[in-house]
Amino acid sequence: MKVYLIGLGKMGYNLALNMKAHGHQVVGFDVSVDVLKKANADGIETIDSLDQLQKDTERKVIWVMLPAGKITNSTLLRLKKLVSENDIVIDGGNSDYHVSVERAKEFADMKVFFMDIGTSGGTYGALHGASFMVGGDESAYEYIEPLLKSMAAEDGLLYTGKSGSGHYLKVIHNAILHSMMEVIGEGFDLLHASPFDYDLKNVAYTWNKSAVIRGWLMELMYHALDQNKKLDDVSTVIHSSSACADAVKSGMDLNIPVPAFGLSLLMRQRTQNQATFDAKVINSLRKEVGGYRPEA
Amino acid sequence: MKVYLIGLGKMGYNLALNMKAHGHQVVGFDVSVDVLKKANADGIETIDSLDQLQKDTERKVIWVMLPAGKITNSTLLRLKKLVSENDIVIDGGNSDYHVSVERAKEFADMKVFFMDIGTSGGTYGALHGASFMVGGDESAYEYIEPLLKSMAAEDGLLYTGKSGSGHYLKVIHNAILHSMMEVIGEGFDLLHASPFDYDLKNVAYTWNKSAVIRGWLMELMYHALDQNKKLDDVSTVIHSSSACADAVKSGMDLNIPVPAFGLSLLMRQRTQNQATFDAKVINSLRKEVGGYRPEA
Amino acid sequence: MKVYLIGLGKMGYNLALNMKAHGHQVVGFDVSVDVLKKANADGIETIDSLDQLQKDTERKVIWVMLPAGKITNSTLLRLKKLVSENDIVIDGGNSDYHVSVERAKEFADMKVFFMDIGTSGGTYGALHGASFMVGGDESAYEYIEPLLKSMAAEDGLLYTGKSGSGHYLKVIHNAILHSMMEVIGEGFDLLHASPFDYDLKNVAYTWNKSAVIRGWLMELMYHALDQNKKLDDVSTVIHSSSACADAVKSGMDLNIPVPAFGLSLLMRQRTQNQATFDAKVINSLRKEVGGYRPEA
Amino acid sequence: MKVYLIGLGKMGYNLALNMKAHGHQVVGFDVSVDVLKKANADGIETIDSLDQLQKDTERKVIWVMLPAGKITNSTLLRLKKLVSENDIVIDGGNSDYHVSVERAKEFADMKVFFMDIGTSGGTYGALHGASFMVGGDESAYEYIEPLLKSMAAEDGLLYTGKSGSGHYLKVIHNAILHSMMEVIGEGFDLLHASPFDYDLKNVAYTWNKSAVIRGWLMELMYHALDQNKKLDDVSTVIHSSSACADAVKSGMDLNIPVPAFGLSLLMRQRTQNQATFDAKVINSLRKEVGGYRPEA
Repeated sequence: MKVYLIGLGKMGYNLALNMKAHGHQVVGFDVSVDVLKKANADGIETIDSLDQLQKDTERKVIWVMLPAGKITNSTLLRLKKLVSENDIVIDGGNSDYHVSVERAKEFADMKVFFMDIGTSGGTYGALHGASFMVGGDESAYEYIEPLLKSMAAEDGLLYTGKSGSGHYLKVIHNAILHSMMEVIGEGFDLLHASPFDYDLKNVAYTWNKSAVIRGWLMELMYHALDQNKKLDDVSTVIHSSSACADAVKSGMDLNIPVPAFGLSLLMRQRTQNQATFDAKVINSLRKEVGGYRPEA
Repeated sequence: MKVYLIGLGKMGYNLALNMKAHGHQVVGFDVSVDVLKKANADGIETIDSLDQLQKDTERKVIWVMLPAGKITNSTLLRLKKLVSENDIVIDGGNSDYHVSVERAKEFADMKVFFMDIGTSGGTYGALHGASFMVGGDESAYEYIEPLLKSMAAEDGLLYTGKSGSGHYLKVIHNAILHSMMEVIGEGFDLLHASPFDYDLKNVAYTWNKSAVIRGWLMELMYHALDQNKKLDDVSTVIHSSSACADAVKSGMDLNIPVPAFGLSLLMRQRTQNQATFDAKVINSLRKEVGGYRPEA
Repeated sequence: MKVYLIGLGKMGYNLALNMKAHGHQVVGFDVSVDVLKKANADGIETIDSLDQLQKDTERKVIWVMLPAGKITNSTLLRLKKLVSENDIVIDGGNSDYHVSVERAKEFADMKVFFMDIGTSGGTYGALHGASFMVGGDESAYEYIEPLLKSMAAEDGLLYTGKSGSGHYLKVIHNAILHSMMEVIGEGFDLLHASPFDYDLKNVAYTWNKSAVIRGWLMELMYHALDQNKKLDDVSTVIHSSSACADAVKSGMDLNIPVPAFGLSLLMRQRTQNQATFDAKVINSLRKEVGGYRPEA
Repeated sequence: MKVYLIGLGKMGYNLALNMKAHGHQVVGFDVSVDVLKKANADGIETIDSLDQLQKDTERKVIWVMLPAGKITNSTLLRLKKLVSENDIVIDGGNSDYHVSVERAKEFADMKVFFMDIGTSGGTYGALHGASFMVGGDESAYEYIEPLLKSMAAEDGLLYTGKSGSGHYLKVIHNAILHSMMEVIGEGFDLLHASPFDYDLKNVAYTWNKSAVIRGWLMELMYHALDQNKKLDDVSTVIHSSSACADAVKSGMDLNIPVPAFGLSLLMRQRTQNQATFDAKVINSLRKEVGGYRPEA
């Protein structure tokens, strides 16, 4: 299958190589000329302007793999002017699912299919077999299914239903991921602070081998501790992604309480913000409560 | 009424002055000779050893006002050997209510009354009129009621029922206090971080004068901001008292979920502990998820 | 001052009476003919169509007091066609502050002033003296200040700065209110479940009179318990307003952790949703953990 | 190795069978005569009174496998009178680790070794290979290591260090487990409530096969949904174990904030307690705020 891949960053580039390795015809595009040259050197065909899409009169599959937000939005708006009836536009990034629902309607008005694909598995998966959660029109899905199947990890492909469902499922996946990390973090923090003298690496190893809580994250925990027994010099400021926030907002909108998701996000935000104004307020109140005297 | 006041710290000293001002006969005791001298200079009678209690053959009222925990415990144990039938021993500090329940039983076995009094209002209240929440035998309460009434703020005296209820009520009072501080802290933190340019002092002033959330804490908030508009140089590390922890533990034991109490405590603890191991674990996992490759 | 008051519901009607009582000329409008008749009977001038606004060639002050969301939005859009340069349009409802920021820009493009006023104090305050938090152009604020001052409770008027700041401050006010209610709820829940036998009415009375946590909410708590000692027959399902959700979302966007706000909202939502799917998932997992056998 | 197994409940019985299958000499004891008969029928030797332990003059290994709390405590106190120098007493249940620390000291005073073993893997693991986390004296551990190794799952045996560390590690393990269940519950609750129409079984299948959040719990989730697509008729009341509470209490004592653990516990407790007094308080306050009028 011929696929236009827009955005040859870490993820996009690996997806392109993955497609090529499975016999698909990839045509890449990126704003960086250097990246285009590198792609050519790796045997990936490229275009140097999105306008060239208009020359292709066949049914086109266009996979956008760009940072969510402004860049993806402006690219998709531009694509509206370049696509033809029946084309399939894929947003494989982490766009807000509300936006993807709207985007699909806009493209549908032009008789173009818009597919929202949640992509999981990191750069390694992008190259060797990713996990794809695909929302959008079912007939369009069937058209691209052979492409996706060839690129996916075993059992890593899921058609999730109507537009937005792919990106929403990715949001929930990531919120579960972030919260499981928080949970593991809390557990090891207690072990570390406890009066006992655990070999944390051995704990992670045993738990990953035989405990109910075994899983890939525990395997990674073991791997990290095996390389750095005390986690020395690891940063204590944690970046917070939009996924957890989107899941919490969704919970508030759906009237579904998700406190573990919420606190996992908040505790990350808290690391970015050590000297809080909140604490100044509380300490000021504490001082006032102790020392305040009513006006004589 | 004659009262032995054991512990002439900030609170105890002011309680002694309060008693004296209301015509009671106070006999103070403290381990510090300097404090005893100062008390004498202020016209407060003292004893220089607890053993002197034994010489007093009248019905005794002994008010212990010491830091909760070891000091209070050892003093109460010592008092057991020095009191006589019908005496009244008061613990006016912040002792664990479980302990106070046990203590009351032990003294009751000796036909001595043990009263647990939660004292609120700070050093100012101790001197000018405190809030007393009193648990213990009702007849003993009636005996000391005139003393307490004279020392309490208007409507500041409450007999709370059986032993432990005074200290437990103080725990809940303090947990509400700490959590209300957290709530006010969160609100002002958002105002401070918002894109708007509020004069926080004016906000606190207006809210305290006319809003549904008016109350003494909002008055104190105004007072603090009036003195220090930006809360400059206020510490961002918050001490956490045992009261909030005791309330949360009680909630866990009673199967009553108290998330606002819990988070108010946890967010304070978090300020004492900025570079968490939890964060190191999470960042290690994040790095592993991104970069880990299964063994070839 | 002449004021058009759009929306004569419980709040709007009382605001109209309040204005009239302070000598302002109120012209009311409502979609209900019955309400208009009642207003006339109460001596309030009315118009029967918004179109009549166009006939008034003076500088107009138009106060919209309608449910936030669709109704307010469509009314404000319609007003755009009916106002003239220099007019002042007030949104006194609970509109999303993001919307108010945008709305102010749109009206400013037409040289019309848009003011976002957070109104607090309930229907009683609307009639007898409310709390107004006013965002928008400062010169326009000065123009309507005499009107607002006459209608406000003592010290109940605050100019909060640029557009959106009035509605945002109301959001934070309400989030503090909801969270303080949660905190008081947790405290009394523990007292109620404890092994002690508190007279909760007396507790609320004493706390309101002399404790650090005294304030209007504690006074209301006493009042409620005075009328209904056990809170018998009070519903255990709690409605959740948008204010708390807006504050939590704002916290997520500003990177300010507000866990007490968040949990106050979530615990309310939880009451609306007793038989959660979350619980079914957890119980299914518990059963599986206990009984699952790997395939033989 | 000869082992006395005290307590032939579900776990204890399977452990006995497991020992026997690996060639150890098991001598069982239980208060139920029926259980003893069944054990004999299954070829397990028994004693009908703990007093018989005194007749055995060899170095004894005594494994207590009883419900934590009163039963375990009274059994261990009784064992104190029946053991001899150098014997090894094992508590394989879920005793409070504080208690185990004290217990080890008491037995050490008698020159008897006390080992606290956290046992994981359910009844299936007890029979076919469990996970053992073992705290206590290292030389005593070495003595029983061959026994434990034969009974453990592959890589399922961990010596954790000094007394209490085995039971504490089990607490943390269970808190992680409970919190991961909460996290998965929140995720599937959102998927279930979302406007999309996911086949949850397929989601769990895919996530377990190829996603970062794969692990045994996700496998169990798939298994549960495979048998009961909608989780119909699953109870929505969740039992809360002591482990999560112990971990949260430990966090409070160690000054380590563990909000995900805390909320996982609280949300379980909340399911047991639907018509909360907290909600009555809040609704009473809401009504008062709306309708209260100050005394005329």
